[in-house]
Amino acid sequence: MDRALTWSPPYRAISPRPAIQKVFNFHPPKAKIGSIKPIDVHVSGGATLWFMGSIDPSELWSVILHTINGHESASKLQLFSSFISPPSFSVRIALNLKGVDYECKPVYLFKGEQFQPEYLKINPMGYVPAIVDGDIILADSSAIMWYLDEKYPQHPLLPSDFKKKAINYQASHVVSSSLQPILRVPILMYIKEHVGHEQQISWIHKHLEKCFTALEELLKDHAGKYATGDELFLADVFLAPYVIGYPEKYNFDMTEFPLLSRLGEEYLKIEAIQGAIPEKQIDFDRSFYYMDVSN
Amino acid sequence: MDRALTWSPPYRAISPRPAIQKVFNFHPPKAKIGSIKPIDVHVSGGATLWFMGSIDPSELWSVILHTINGHESASKLQLFSSFISPPSFSVRIALNLKGVDYECKPVYLFKGEQFQPEYLKINPMGYVPAIVDGDIILADSSAIMWYLDEKYPQHPLLPSDFKKKAINYQASHVVSSSLQPILRVPILMYIKEHVGHEQQISWIHKHLEKCFTALEELLKDHAGKYATGDELFLADVFLAPYVIGYPEKYNFDMTEFPLLSRLGEEYLKIEAIQGAIPEKQIDFDRSFYYMDVSN
Repeated sequence: MDRALTWSPPYRAISPRPAIQKVFNFHPPKAKIGSIKPIDVHVSGGATLWFMGSIDPSELWSVILHTINGHESASKLQLFSSFISPPSFSVRIALNLKGVDYECKPVYLFKGEQFQPEYLKINPMGYVPAIVDGDIILADSSAIMWYLDEKYPQHPLLPSDFKKKAINYQASHVVSSSLQPILRVPILMYIKEHVGHEQQISWIHKHLEKCFTALEELLKDHAGKYATGDELFLADVFLAPYVIGYPEKYNFDMTEFPLLSRLGEEYLKIEAIQGAIPEKQIDFDRSFYYMDVSN
Repeated sequence: MDRALTWSPPYRAISPRPAIQKVFNFHPPKAKIGSIKPIDVHVSGGATLWFMGSIDPSELWSVILHTINGHESASKLQLFSSFISPPSFSVRIALNLKGVDYECKPVYLFKGEQFQPEYLKINPMGYVPAIVDGDIILADSSAIMWYLDEKYPQHPLLPSDFKKKAINYQASHVVSSSLQPILRVPILMYIKEHVGHEQQISWIHKHLEKCFTALEELLKDHAGKYATGDELFLADVFLAPYVIGYPEKYNFDMTEFPLLSRLGEEYLKIEAIQGAIPEKQIDFDRSFYYMDVSN
């Protein structure tokens, strides 16, 4: 893994190990990199280590790893999430794609843990997902995606092409702003309680149909192997939780959505996505998984 | 206006006129800028103009303006919006802050214009706002904000400070992903029709209270004159439509939200926001404005 350490010009190294963010401030410049001094090493969690004197760059990484031993595990990114939450699923995919090692902190929504004072300090909305990464505490899947992409640049979630970037923003927000909030469990429970069980199912189907129809139209001229080409980007990360397992859970017919159906199949071939599915999470509970649709 | 042209080092000019985005690729470098050749001028709408030969930089702008005469008006940004839509309000604020001259194309939601095939080509979701800017067609307020900030860098919507940026992302998404979708007119009409008029009011109050409580908590350590300091940023742009006029419309008591109340007052002092309020839009219609809450 140490060999995967990449040097980008000049005077900067990005580690493949997520706990170590950046090595920078090399003096003197690249040409004399063998005589680095000092080196400022930033570790997630806020620690700064200084190395004085001459270090061979080929030895640098093992010196750093040795020095921060112990600190690393304490500063691992924490993901507060639930197996039942699609945006938690999206954030897990992003973390996996980026190879960020994280600690899962399940929030048991059906026990009301999201409304406990300790959790409200992390996210005053009482929603999952939220992350704690060093001194950053952040909630909302879109905000977290931005953070992850800025902090962990490996496997960018946005393409460099301007139009492709725009379509990724739009498609991901169709999911995060127009579908996901309407299909939150408390909203579904409200509809079931105040309107009825059948109307709850129609509510789910109506909103899935509206958003899926728009997404098919939006992506039809952009899709390749994945939503906006042959690489996985933000649109895929947000879409995946709704085309994997979700239609089956709510008995939603995907016949009219051939592109989304195909994407769902492609996504399941990807290790970063396989590892993020609800069934593989430590808090997965089949009886709760279907609770919001049971009569 | 031509005199307001700003040159940022090196070899780049940003125009105060929104239709003209960037002037770049100056050769040879700054020291010899009097003998520019060629210059690549990008104009919103996709036109690229080339100037060969020597041009004095002091004359450059008038040459460009002269050359693109006629093209400019055809390529003015079009905003498809409704006076009743809070995210349209947010986008108008952003456009005003950035000084982007735009053409308002009202979409009459109560006449169902958002479901007409011509509009669905612009936004397959049938929601406002959407923009057409040259060859970019984009919907969803968050996606539009990203686009505007990238395309029109004047008055950045995000601070450069990392933590302040994070709080702006989170707070703006509390509004755009957790409040706005739940309070869309079709959702409110559904609740009124299927549950009742009083429950519709409780629904609005419950969600306003939840989000406003979270926003007060989230912003309390960051606010200055505005939501995250003494400059207007993304959090303000999304928040403004919900603290100006909105509580009054829905008879929502703001006593418990002193920070948000104060922000609402501050926002109304700002010209870019004053010009964006629903009452000042060409499609404003008082009878429709209150339709969704009338018994």
